[in-house]
Amino acid sequence: MPEPEKRATLADQVSEATTSRLSVYLRCLDQLAEAGVATVASNTLAARFGLNAAQIRKDLAHFGELGVRGVGYDVEKLRRHLREILGLDRTSRVGILGAGNLGLALADYSGFRDGFEVVAIFDTDPAKVGRRTRRGITVRHIYELRETVAREGIHIALIAVPATAAQDVVDLVVASGIKAILNFAPGALRVPPHVKLKSVDFTVSLETLSFFLASDRDGNQP
Amino acid sequence: MPEPEKRATLADQVSEATTSRLSVYLRCLDQLAEAGVATVASNTLAARFGLNAAQIRKDLAHFGELGVRGVGYDVEKLRRHLREILGLDRTSRVGILGAGNLGLALADYSGFRDGFEVVAIFDTDPAKVGRRTRRGITVRHIYELRETVAREGIHIALIAVPATAAQDVVDLVVASGIKAILNFAPGALRVPPHVKLKSVDFTVSLETLSFFLASDRDGNQP
Repeated sequence: MPEPEKRATLADQVSEATTSRLSVYLRCLDQLAEAGVATVASNTLAARFGLNAAQIRKDLAHFGELGVRGVGYDVEKLRRHLREILGLDRTSRVGILGAGNLGLALADYSGFRDGFEVVAIFDTDPAKVGRRTRRGITVRHIYELRETVAREGIHIALIAVPATAAQDVVDLVVASGIKAILNFAPGALRVPPHVKLKSVDFTVSLETLSFFLASDRDGNQP
Repeated sequence: MPEPEKRATLADQVSEATTSRLSVYLRCLDQLAEAGVATVASNTLAARFGLNAAQIRKDLAHFGELGVRGVGYDVEKLRRHLREILGLDRTSRVGILGAGNLGLALADYSGFRDGFEVVAIFDTDPAKVGRRTRRGITVRHIYELRETVAREGIHIALIAVPATAAQDVVDLVVASGIKAILNFAPGALRVPPHVKLKSVDFTVSLETLSFFLASDRDGNQP
């Protein structure tokens, strides 16, 4: 019997920057669909949402011929297609590590599109374990992580613990079998190669603003 | 008398992607400084932190000759220089709009580097106004925004209100004279051209993970 070929996954071929843009396109298409728009040209999409038309065509070309020249993209079809590409046609079950202010804010966050469902939240503080979030999820002790991940089929972990605890918590998350982690704690974290870690870094965004203010200040001096 | 020339600011010449990378370099240099490293070559910096050496050299070249060929960058000098470029040599005073879980989490966030100080937090809920955050900042009513911004010299606003209230709150923030806004509410917001708005979008990051999981799943299927 021949060895099964190691297939390259889409994730190997498509950059993270492209994936982020697909999310943005999907959001724009959601708005168009809500406004009753049926087809849209890349130029119109670009002009309306401040995007780059050539970039849109290039990004979508990765995934086959999705538009018709002179007509544009079928909004509904492209939405469905993007949702499939982004894996949003199934619901990803999410667990939150840390039931402090940030963890509770994430548990209630209304901005998660369909495609994500927070199903569990964990902490180590006895005063927090057993409490319920506004949406009715009971805070569990982190000792129950592995068992809960298996039972609830959790795919994604959000790390909302203090920086000093983050690496230990990430190690537990990896050991529980979760392969996708979104980290909100400041500082660098290590994960094995088969696990995908993304960090949401407020400080880098803040420093972009600080740079803007500083150069605005300098630019306005005589 | 001649018209004063309209000087292009640094922010006009340097892309946001570059600014974000400068923040990342600064963080790496902070770690090197802490470890007692005095000089570092771009190749070493790149290898150690998973960055691109050519990109580092190109980014830093925007700001004059900062390294010595064959020796590398003086860690302390480059840190100081990057802090100046990013406007971190002065403290930016930050106001938070919204004293819910997210606003309180941001008020306590330990990841903000020196260079930022949260000095005020606002809400409209009478049950929240007058309370104090863990770090001792009293929640004010948003009616006091304009006066507080002027008195406290607030430069940056963080928007941590529900999506439905976000545009109204941003309009108040702009009217109060603030020119830099970091938004955590989902959805698009409008600001006038002289105001810089950055949004922290958890959903795009989550969708990158969902894409990774989906293509991992498909790639592993026979």
